[in-house]
Amino acid sequence: MEEQHWENNEMTFDKFHEECGVAGVFANEDAANLVYLSLYALQHRGQEGAGIAVSNRSEMKYEKGMGLVADIFSEAKLEGLAGDIAIGHNRYSTTGISELANTQPITVTINAGQISLAHNGNIVNAEEIKNELVRQGAIFNSSSDSEVIVHLIAKSKKEDLVESIIHSLRQLNGAFSLLVMTNDKLIGVRDPMGMRPLVLGKLKNGYILTSESCALDLIEATMVREIEPGEMVIIDENGLESIFPFEKTDPKPCVFEHIYFARPDSFIFGDSVYDVRKRMGKKLAEEDNIEADVVIPVPDSGVVATLGYYEESGIPFQMGLMRNHYVGRTFIEPSQSIRHFGVKIKLNPVRSVIEGKRVVVVDDSIVRGTTSRKIVKMLREAGAKEVHMRISSPPTTFPCFYGIDTPTRKELIASTHNVEEIRKYITADSLSYLSLEGLMECVNGGGYCHACFSGQYPTLHPDGD
Amino acid sequence: MEEQHWENNEMTFDKFHEECGVAGVFANEDAANLVYLSLYALQHRGQEGAGIAVSNRSEMKYEKGMGLVADIFSEAKLEGLAGDIAIGHNRYSTTGISELANTQPITVTINAGQISLAHNGNIVNAEEIKNELVRQGAIFNSSSDSEVIVHLIAKSKKEDLVESIIHSLRQLNGAFSLLVMTNDKLIGVRDPMGMRPLVLGKLKNGYILTSESCALDLIEATMVREIEPGEMVIIDENGLESIFPFEKTDPKPCVFEHIYFARPDSFIFGDSVYDVRKRMGKKLAEEDNIEADVVIPVPDSGVVATLGYYEESGIPFQMGLMRNHYVGRTFIEPSQSIRHFGVKIKLNPVRSVIEGKRVVVVDDSIVRGTTSRKIVKMLREAGAKEVHMRISSPPTTFPCFYGIDTPTRKELIASTHNVEEIRKYITADSLSYLSLEGLMECVNGGGYCHACFSGQYPTLHPDGD
Amino acid sequence: MEEQHWENNEMTFDKFHEECGVAGVFANEDAANLVYLSLYALQHRGQEGAGIAVSNRSEMKYEKGMGLVADIFSEAKLEGLAGDIAIGHNRYSTTGISELANTQPITVTINAGQISLAHNGNIVNAEEIKNELVRQGAIFNSSSDSEVIVHLIAKSKKEDLVESIIHSLRQLNGAFSLLVMTNDKLIGVRDPMGMRPLVLGKLKNGYILTSESCALDLIEATMVREIEPGEMVIIDENGLESIFPFEKTDPKPCVFEHIYFARPDSFIFGDSVYDVRKRMGKKLAEEDNIEADVVIPVPDSGVVATLGYYEESGIPFQMGLMRNHYVGRTFIEPSQSIRHFGVKIKLNPVRSVIEGKRVVVVDDSIVRGTTSRKIVKMLREAGAKEVHMRISSPPTTFPCFYGIDTPTRKELIASTHNVEEIRKYITADSLSYLSLEGLMECVNGGGYCHACFSGQYPTLHPDGD
Amino acid sequence: MEEQHWENNEMTFDKFHEECGVAGVFANEDAANLVYLSLYALQHRGQEGAGIAVSNRSEMKYEKGMGLVADIFSEAKLEGLAGDIAIGHNRYSTTGISELANTQPITVTINAGQISLAHNGNIVNAEEIKNELVRQGAIFNSSSDSEVIVHLIAKSKKEDLVESIIHSLRQLNGAFSLLVMTNDKLIGVRDPMGMRPLVLGKLKNGYILTSESCALDLIEATMVREIEPGEMVIIDENGLESIFPFEKTDPKPCVFEHIYFARPDSFIFGDSVYDVRKRMGKKLAEEDNIEADVVIPVPDSGVVATLGYYEESGIPFQMGLMRNHYVGRTFIEPSQSIRHFGVKIKLNPVRSVIEGKRVVVVDDSIVRGTTSRKIVKMLREAGAKEVHMRISSPPTTFPCFYGIDTPTRKELIASTHNVEEIRKYITADSLSYLSLEGLMECVNGGGYCHACFSGQYPTLHPDGD
Repeated sequence: MEEQHWENNEMTFDKFHEECGVAGVFANEDAANLVYLSLYALQHRGQEGAGIAVSNRSEMKYEKGMGLVADIFSEAKLEGLAGDIAIGHNRYSTTGISELANTQPITVTINAGQISLAHNGNIVNAEEIKNELVRQGAIFNSSSDSEVIVHLIAKSKKEDLVESIIHSLRQLNGAFSLLVMTNDKLIGVRDPMGMRPLVLGKLKNGYILTSESCALDLIEATMVREIEPGEMVIIDENGLESIFPFEKTDPKPCVFEHIYFARPDSFIFGDSVYDVRKRMGKKLAEEDNIEADVVIPVPDSGVVATLGYYEESGIPFQMGLMRNHYVGRTFIEPSQSIRHFGVKIKLNPVRSVIEGKRVVVVDDSIVRGTTSRKIVKMLREAGAKEVHMRISSPPTTFPCFYGIDTPTRKELIASTHNVEEIRKYITADSLSYLSLEGLMECVNGGGYCHACFSGQYPTLHPDGD
Repeated sequence: MEEQHWENNEMTFDKFHEECGVAGVFANEDAANLVYLSLYALQHRGQEGAGIAVSNRSEMKYEKGMGLVADIFSEAKLEGLAGDIAIGHNRYSTTGISELANTQPITVTINAGQISLAHNGNIVNAEEIKNELVRQGAIFNSSSDSEVIVHLIAKSKKEDLVESIIHSLRQLNGAFSLLVMTNDKLIGVRDPMGMRPLVLGKLKNGYILTSESCALDLIEATMVREIEPGEMVIIDENGLESIFPFEKTDPKPCVFEHIYFARPDSFIFGDSVYDVRKRMGKKLAEEDNIEADVVIPVPDSGVVATLGYYEESGIPFQMGLMRNHYVGRTFIEPSQSIRHFGVKIKLNPVRSVIEGKRVVVVDDSIVRGTTSRKIVKMLREAGAKEVHMRISSPPTTFPCFYGIDTPTRKELIASTHNVEEIRKYITADSLSYLSLEGLMECVNGGGYCHACFSGQYPTLHPDGD
Repeated sequence: MEEQHWENNEMTFDKFHEECGVAGVFANEDAANLVYLSLYALQHRGQEGAGIAVSNRSEMKYEKGMGLVADIFSEAKLEGLAGDIAIGHNRYSTTGISELANTQPITVTINAGQISLAHNGNIVNAEEIKNELVRQGAIFNSSSDSEVIVHLIAKSKKEDLVESIIHSLRQLNGAFSLLVMTNDKLIGVRDPMGMRPLVLGKLKNGYILTSESCALDLIEATMVREIEPGEMVIIDENGLESIFPFEKTDPKPCVFEHIYFARPDSFIFGDSVYDVRKRMGKKLAEEDNIEADVVIPVPDSGVVATLGYYEESGIPFQMGLMRNHYVGRTFIEPSQSIRHFGVKIKLNPVRSVIEGKRVVVVDDSIVRGTTSRKIVKMLREAGAKEVHMRISSPPTTFPCFYGIDTPTRKELIASTHNVEEIRKYITADSLSYLSLEGLMECVNGGGYCHACFSGQYPTLHPDGD
Repeated sequence: MEEQHWENNEMTFDKFHEECGVAGVFANEDAANLVYLSLYALQHRGQEGAGIAVSNRSEMKYEKGMGLVADIFSEAKLEGLAGDIAIGHNRYSTTGISELANTQPITVTINAGQISLAHNGNIVNAEEIKNELVRQGAIFNSSSDSEVIVHLIAKSKKEDLVESIIHSLRQLNGAFSLLVMTNDKLIGVRDPMGMRPLVLGKLKNGYILTSESCALDLIEATMVREIEPGEMVIIDENGLESIFPFEKTDPKPCVFEHIYFARPDSFIFGDSVYDVRKRMGKKLAEEDNIEADVVIPVPDSGVVATLGYYEESGIPFQMGLMRNHYVGRTFIEPSQSIRHFGVKIKLNPVRSVIEGKRVVVVDDSIVRGTTSRKIVKMLREAGAKEVHMRISSPPTTFPCFYGIDTPTRKELIASTHNVEEIRKYITADSLSYLSLEGLMECVNGGGYCHACFSGQYPTLHPDGD
């Protein structure tokens, strides 16, 4: 294997899954503020841009921007978003002709009036639908797959807007946890497989729909329940109505939400993310038999699994890698002469924890392998006697079609190399992954989408490489 | 007349006509830079926002922002706009759900591929077309009337994109000096009445289409000619093709371009703006018989007409009002106690020019009357013995449907008050306007749209108030 | 003469005199706001940076920044500057280790408490004093000559602060129109020669001291009188006290204030700037006998002199060069291929005024000659038959020691070339300057400093090149 | 006890100690960049402002700003800081007339030339010295105690600059880890008690002096050793010279550096911070006998001590409080209705870890008590059966005179309340602190300053309240 092939100077960790966060509030005078706080709590689901749209029951306004929620919204901008219904969106990554054009909510005027839409997920047949819509005369302003949903709604001949939305969503193949705001309604819907999370909360005044329960905690909303796979809730002056407009299918929530995406303090897919992640660490230890002096996480994402690993293995838990939490997107890398800079700027080993020790280091996944390789080198330079890399999920071998902009297979090291080859590349003394069976046990026997590990995509997907 | 009714604290002069500037370059490596400079030269046509889109022959990119051209485009942004075709747009004023959404160029993906569009003018039947398009399932992202043009093009069933554009423009009633950029073409077109200017220039490499000739001077392009009313030019690898796709009609260029909009150093509608404006001043003097000691302009827009007035009348020309050119849109008005602040921040009288004198002060138009009133007071406080206000155009009595966001009739002082009433309101010793006949003589006997003075709209227009 | 030697790509006009503006308000609740407005009116005296310091009678605060007044001070910043005494400063140009460190007011803690200082002028013996102070243990934070004044005050052994200030100022050789704010006083002082202007105004509540009367107009203060050369006014709770603490000497106000620095709508040195400047134009015409078709100014600084020239000569006045007033300091010059860009971005000829004409073009001065050269070329390209450059002041041959950062003699074209050589360099058909005698007649027989024309410096000066 | 008295809506955790970080590089072409990276690694020591000064051997330049290092320094600013000697400073907090004026390095011109100074620590007799200096005619530009050091150096009559620095520092009472840059030297010095850390590193080219070893790791410098208490190192072309210019005294490093200030991955005062902090947790557990189901840290500062606690007690370690790492200083608190917002925005409990459990929660210290109170409430709302607060240091009872801007005694809850009263206030089931003896054992038997716990100040201090 050519090492050169895999080296790059990436700044950020090489997660390949990409995500978004959504939040919508109905009938609360503070709607935009509560959505702002929710987006802030969901910042981990998308740091590239955010937006909030608000309805005052007669017209909509919105604000969007690139960057972090706290940087985009000034007090003046929030004050300008008057109205008691609001939806918001955090975007993980954007592509295409203009980054700003791809931020959401998408707020447009259609036959039924103004609507705003915030989408978490990925539409597998978006390109196909887009081509047909464009052929018919539609114009597209962004490269976001979410824009097709608005077009389908706009073109629907149904009398009723809710009917139009249902009719449109039925044409989609893929993942959507979707919020639609009309002048007087907040609608939330999850695709029949329920790939992305969506929870319902009760505010002192009104309701909130949002991606993860951690947002409810921040704004002191009570968690009511999760929206079910295939369920649509329509919240308006008459209260909350729940319908199941799609053909029933087996739920296939994304197991990577539990492995990496969601915050450990959230409750999704019927389970505590913290508990699931700890179980993964335990199972990983159960499947392992390495002897070591210390087990350390790659912070922050590996921490909870490592706590499980230590509980099961009895190997002492330490924070052998310290994370600098001032890392921002604007950081300049001024010095070309410093090696492995991308990881150094985030992580620094604690020599007294590592030196002379046989170290187990736990991470949630390996994508390209470059980060893992840098971490192993860093630990050896800090004096580790042995470095054993443990991954709390199976090898990620297949691209995801239900997230956004995944790398192609050839960028995934596990799709072209076996575990021993990967071990050699990352220069670890040993490497092991959690088995797929082990993983499924941790999420109560399965019913999850694990296509990125198994290639078993729950829907038909377009031919990619 | 209630004075209260007319008082407000407006910061800016109360011009009611609103405008835009456009520029497009074909086949020059420096395309975005040249468009940037052109927009800079056209800054007077729109200060609220600007954008530039560029094609590198395979895809388009754009940058947009609110504010002045020089503030929006950094060196980095311009460098990012690589490609040899570019179009740009200065926006005068924006309304609606998001100001940024209304800036142009509008860059979209349609059946024919990507297109960008920059529009100067106003589509009278935009609302009507929009309603029909929305009924058919179109989605609208802005409140700009220009968005309907893109939709019509997208929906056209014509084989050829140029045919589609023609087909679409034929459905429009109103004013358009329009640039369309495709991946490999730059198309410029003027509506059959030729209401807004559009000139063609030759660069050392390639062509430029832009609103006024002053932009050509800055970038050292040679003026070739004006695009004719109803003419479309298609510039591509094969050179420049000119066609006349519309039914022939009498040209009706907007006379207000000569009175106020255009820069005096531009050549539009077959005439030097400076010369026309000076003729207006001469004619104004010819129709006048006031005795005075000095004639002064309201700078900057009244300067050239005043030069004509002085030549004809023999009354000495002086700069009795000095303009502070550091006025910007971000200026804070910190003191509530200062009277007539809005004008003071821009204009200051020169006491030694004014004191003890009979002053003729020349402006190009009166809209609400509040600014004129403040100027008269300011001159009296500086010691003027008499103040005679002279306007180098007729009373603006009717709203314009070919610009954008004009005030309703009741905001136009001349639509509800006669000249003597206006004189009383602005507290001048005398007030006179250039006659409509006089004005028409200055533009070579007419053929111009003068609806804002006469109410004779050259097209049917929707019922407004 | 090598043309290459003189060519550069400067953006701005090549004035070599540099200036500042000051304003101070005593006993008005709105003090910081009124100073802000005054600095705004004095923006022409310095665009590089500004600051405002305020005293609430027990402590001082300040805000400073680089750029234009309107950009530096937000509403929040102004609100933070609570207090009823305030002084402010516009800086023309800064040099040294940090630009921001050189902005004023200088606010420091000394033995007598906190003081703030804003200085317009130049201290000829600053370097000498600084060297001695540093030798004694003083520390300097900036490269500004004004910092020596604060040091002298701090080190003075006088019991009383006013005595200390007097004692300090007596050691200075040079120009100072100076404001000093203490916790409860506003002190204004002009050097014995009165080189820089300083006027006293009365507010409805309290007093204002400021560089030019145009600032009084904006804030509706009444002009009381100018501060006399050598006069110090101390304004406090007991009212206004005037003293003359310096040895009497002949006043030598700077004639360049009338030629270029001051705004035409100001009244300084006992005269209207507008009137003086017009007289210069008249005298220039009187000394001239050229035959021409049109006389045009180089705007904005040449306008008023040109009005005088036309009155005297009878040659018709036109605005043959249009100025783009959106020029800002952040403008990017993206195109290397365009010639004479520096002037083009500001000025554009009006072809119909110039073409085929014998043109007299009036400017206030020539420094390096590069701008004049570009203007002549520009006029020829616009079709001028002849171009006659007329300058409303004598050749600027000597550097100024009473402004700041003047170019050395070898940069002044008139110090190394005679008029005919300059004419050749700027490629004009003829060139003439106002005579020194003529100039002195315009300012009522003299008593002005004209060292930059005559080399007759009113004080001893350090040996420069 | 009145609860009202202690309630406030503070955003940040209520640490009362305040700190700074310094870094200086000698003889490396990349000097400013390496200092930038070091300041970035030391960001935890000060987030309010930062600056870098550079010497190119003939003159100095600097850049300063408010906020985080990564936000202050753009690529352009760093490129502008050319030179091979540089020093930098992170400021924790600023006070006084202008925040920017208090940022460091302080760069001034004195008799010996230009010098720059970056100071970590607090001068106890600064006010006294300042008063005397001001009486003698000194001027002060900031309210920083570090400015007195520059004055003393400037006024020193010693022939040699190094002698002057020594002479000046001998007059100081307090803490200083100080960097001084001259045109050709980098000087580092620690006060005789060695209160603040300072380490020496070797770069491939040149040397670095910086507050903590974690900065060396980032820039791949090798740690040479710590600068000794009372040691001065002078680095110049001749290499590194070490002298001990002060009277010998017992070292008294600040124990709070180990408890809270320093990063766990740093090595200071002869020990690994991580190890010391873990020992504190162990000792805390040793002194404790509570029965509980889980021990959790208050992240991030309590994590390492908690790891020690779990090792000793055997109580399972979990991350029961999740920290949102996107918290920034610009965050808006839009909702008045949400209780305990200040803590919620940073921390969220993990219900599945807490619910039904007897929870030990470990923090490093309690200042006002308001944050602890909110954490206890938060844990109870998450279902904790019992909440036992454990603090890995003794009660902080006395203000610190060797940091900056400490709260007065009445703000320190432990100075007016006993442990039981504090327990009641924070509503915990039990509360205990690490004993002073226990703490001293963790740092190898003492020799540390523990005045904030014991009131035994190692120097005389001015009478405070």
